[in-house]
Amino acid sequence: MGFLSILSFAHALARERVRPGDVAVDATMGNGRDTLFLAGLVGEGGRVYAFDVQEAALANTRERLAAAGVPASRCSLLLRDHAELAEALPAEEHGRVAAVLFNLGYLPGGDRSVVTTPASTLQALDAGLAALRPGGVLCAVVYPGHPGGAEEAAAVEAWAAALEQARYQAMTYRFLNQRSAPPYVVAAEKRN
Amino acid sequence: MGFLSILSFAHALARERVRPGDVAVDATMGNGRDTLFLAGLVGEGGRVYAFDVQEAALANTRERLAAAGVPASRCSLLLRDHAELAEALPAEEHGRVAAVLFNLGYLPGGDRSVVTTPASTLQALDAGLAALRPGGVLCAVVYPGHPGGAEEAAAVEAWAAALEQARYQAMTYRFLNQRSAPPYVVAAEKRN
Repeated sequence: MGFLSILSFAHALARERVRPGDVAVDATMGNGRDTLFLAGLVGEGGRVYAFDVQEAALANTRERLAAAGVPASRCSLLLRDHAELAEALPAEEHGRVAAVLFNLGYLPGGDRSVVTTPASTLQALDAGLAALRPGGVLCAVVYPGHPGGAEEAAAVEAWAAALEQARYQAMTYRFLNQRSAPPYVVAAEKRN
Repeated sequence: MGFLSILSFAHALARERVRPGDVAVDATMGNGRDTLFLAGLVGEGGRVYAFDVQEAALANTRERLAAAGVPASRCSLLLRDHAELAEALPAEEHGRVAAVLFNLGYLPGGDRSVVTTPASTLQALDAGLAALRPGGVLCAVVYPGHPGGAEEAAAVEAWAAALEQARYQAMTYRFLNQRSAPPYVVAAEKRN
């Protein structure tokens, strides 16, 4: 049957925690796959905030959501750096977010010179974690095989390892015997 | 809700793969907790082979199985080093094993000078992997916090990382932000 893939594992962490009506964040919109996934989990009464710095990402995501029949009102697609998550998220949503997903690296099919960077990523991780409700999860898929990706992955892992044990649980799920440097999961849950 | 504990994650890997009538191996019997768990999964028509070098482990396990109403005939409790797994397992079971569990370190409540060692553990891992059927899983819980445990954990992880990608999938699941060096999972699945 095989072990759960990295993306399936990340999605399972969100699926186990997000309920209809919840608020969720896609910190790296890309082509909108996670935005659509989260929109399905939060359902009609819920809301997804999605971030990307490239207009192409918003256009692709808008199209993907429309094709899937998701009402545009359910998702706020923001042309902003995820480092601005704290300011961009409406004040009333802070502390209410059930899941924040990060899929780091470059936009598939987009400009490969536009990548997430450790500095903005760490700021976004801090803001995402702060926005979680108790029991909420932040899940990052990191790509050590991309240019600059090894440093970013190490920075995310160190960030998670430094989280206060009394307030958060942090874990990693990764494959060990792949020839290339494959992506892996780093996740944190806010304790109740 | 919290992330799955290390032991729950290890058990889930086995539970997803072991069917009634299957053969399973507990490579580190200890107090018999995993032997009992596997006996429940394989059920009436199945068989569990369990290894330990301490007579106390067999006595404790025998008692635990009896208390749970598991017929003694379902489990072969072997007073042998798991390094001898290849010889100790009946020839007809080779290539039929659905799951092999390792819980490394010392016997809880037993003699702490009697520990698993990297050399015998690696031999046992090789034999356990060879005995798996396609789709079968080998799952080791390693304890870097025990004396000598860090070296053993590193050896197990390196062993898994070196497995041929075309024949096996290897992964790890671990917590990142615990102050002590907590146990973690290293697992391998034989591809179909």
